[in-house]
Amino acid sequence: MSMAVTFLGTGSAYPSPSRGASALVLRREGECWLFDCGEGTQTQFMKSHLRAGRVTKIFITHLHGDHFFGLPGLLCTISLQSSPELKKPLVDIYGPVGLQNFLQRSLELSHSQLLFPYAVHELVPTQDQCPVDEFKDFSHLGGEEVSVQGAQGRRLHLEPGEESYLLLEDEQLVVKAFRLFHRVPSFGFVVEEKPRAGKLNVEKLKDFGVPPGPLYGKLKNGSTVVLDNGVTISPSDVLETPIPGRKICILGDCSGVVGEAAAALCWGADLLIHEATLDDSQEEKAREHGHSTPKMASEFAKGCRVKKLVLTHFSQRYKPAAQRGEGDEDVAELKRQAELVLGGQEVTLAEDFMTIEIPMKK
Amino acid sequence: MSMAVTFLGTGSAYPSPSRGASALVLRREGECWLFDCGEGTQTQFMKSHLRAGRVTKIFITHLHGDHFFGLPGLLCTISLQSSPELKKPLVDIYGPVGLQNFLQRSLELSHSQLLFPYAVHELVPTQDQCPVDEFKDFSHLGGEEVSVQGAQGRRLHLEPGEESYLLLEDEQLVVKAFRLFHRVPSFGFVVEEKPRAGKLNVEKLKDFGVPPGPLYGKLKNGSTVVLDNGVTISPSDVLETPIPGRKICILGDCSGVVGEAAAALCWGADLLIHEATLDDSQEEKAREHGHSTPKMASEFAKGCRVKKLVLTHFSQRYKPAAQRGEGDEDVAELKRQAELVLGGQEVTLAEDFMTIEIPMKK
Repeated sequence: MSMAVTFLGTGSAYPSPSRGASALVLRREGECWLFDCGEGTQTQFMKSHLRAGRVTKIFITHLHGDHFFGLPGLLCTISLQSSPELKKPLVDIYGPVGLQNFLQRSLELSHSQLLFPYAVHELVPTQDQCPVDEFKDFSHLGGEEVSVQGAQGRRLHLEPGEESYLLLEDEQLVVKAFRLFHRVPSFGFVVEEKPRAGKLNVEKLKDFGVPPGPLYGKLKNGSTVVLDNGVTISPSDVLETPIPGRKICILGDCSGVVGEAAAALCWGADLLIHEATLDDSQEEKAREHGHSTPKMASEFAKGCRVKKLVLTHFSQRYKPAAQRGEGDEDVAELKRQAELVLGGQEVTLAEDFMTIEIPMKK
Repeated sequence: MSMAVTFLGTGSAYPSPSRGASALVLRREGECWLFDCGEGTQTQFMKSHLRAGRVTKIFITHLHGDHFFGLPGLLCTISLQSSPELKKPLVDIYGPVGLQNFLQRSLELSHSQLLFPYAVHELVPTQDQCPVDEFKDFSHLGGEEVSVQGAQGRRLHLEPGEESYLLLEDEQLVVKAFRLFHRVPSFGFVVEEKPRAGKLNVEKLKDFGVPPGPLYGKLKNGSTVVLDNGVTISPSDVLETPIPGRKICILGDCSGVVGEAAAALCWGADLLIHEATLDDSQEEKAREHGHSTPKMASEFAKGCRVKKLVLTHFSQRYKPAAQRGEGDEDVAELKRQAELVLGGQEVTLAEDFMTIEIPMKK
């Protein structure tokens, strides 16, 4: 099953013609999950090979405009381009408390009637996710009005003991959020596939006397079978070790993580997407604004033993050498700085419309 | 004094890579006045020769997302790119009731602190500006909270007897709004320069015995002068007829106007910018959605004896012949339909980044 990440916006602070505001899509089984939705994301979709109408889940890392001002417009356009007969399924939206009210207000004021249902599930941040004097409590904003189109979203609190937020879990996947430190509360998301059953060990099947045919399939799918001779065979008797699923970690703006959960959740990730707004020489300024440098990002990645690190959310002043004008800096310097920390490991700098495939494990 | 209109977005319903969402700039004396601010307007500014930081006034025609969803992001980016020492003057924002609350909420939720003051002046629509069942009263939304950055805006009601809204007036200009009929209350704006003093009639100056020199300037500037021989000369004694100012009319989405004021205000306009969302063959559908066709737009322009008609806000399906794909239609057909009504008069179809100069009269 293919799984790929496509960047729709890789610039920080505001969208520019060369780098859109934050947005990326995780595509799996034909579904698109959107992470952040800065202004202009709908136009970036049109320029890409992806279709906004395929979006079934949206995750907003934090409430800075360059990460969510594109959301009302995107939903309106998806609705305009859909047909009422098609019965588009519910769109789940996850983001910090306050998002639901913003969305509802924007749709109400713009007289927008979405042709599909949506639910906003709000993450309740903790006060240590930003400087004390920056913390604003928007929890009074939620659910003050009942929306016709908005289904009932959930309020998600930090799981006691876990230090993470469980967003969704099904047979194949689990998605959790964890806390980041930024100017305003920010979140990271981990999408992790559950392990698949290992291969059937044909030698063992023979040893147990399992006849080739449908029983192989049953065992592979996890069912216990009873042979004609009365012997009971469990899947674990004949299956190789389970094959791990893929793990993708997408972090919002941050100058670090909060609590112990982040490192554990990101441990061994196949792909970690981390911001690097400013280069290492600007670390003080970066921290002051709640941002990271390549060194900060790659130290976290190193600590988590991630297999691939992708940096994004670059200040608009960093440009490829060929596009640099007055006052611009070479974006390739950010790659060098990150790779310095990670030794031989290659680091990728995100660009708008870049797609990264995450292959299945075997 | 140069005066020019630049289109930043000429598409209807949503922004696309070929036509941005509604936005246009009227430039005069180095100031930019922005009319409508659909999503992506800030990026369109960056692609144009104009600078968003020059915007001093913003006019929003109506509260559909493709006309105002770009406003919070634009203001945030202007603020980010300005310096606190520069003391950017107040930005006046005019638009329908509800706009102030939206803006305030968006800025508050996104933790945005604008580095310049702004005031939202809200136009109170009348119920006959849209279908009865579509009318929503947002008047309770205004002023419920006091914004730190937002200066006190005014509530503008229809001027009794005038059937228009007086937005601003100074020595050089007057700006009024008038009512349009759409799915939601929509407005048109008229920017009109006041007449300039006519030329000095040198023959008459000689006849009156005015000696060449500073007295000429005084008379030209409207001051009465007394000659050495005790004779009093009024400017009107020696000036030709005043030179009319320029008149620019910018209409929001509409399938028609409400009341008598619109035609009178637009009479003889040098430039009238009117929407033509669908072509003449779709008139029924256009009217159902509160929109106009080229015929409807040009009939209004003809009735007002406007000197130049520019059509904009085209459904994204209309494309130049060279760019047409499956399901697209030729945008040039809209020009033909409008010119059919206006006889020999040429009609211009707006395109993103097109600039139209409006020369001073002599």
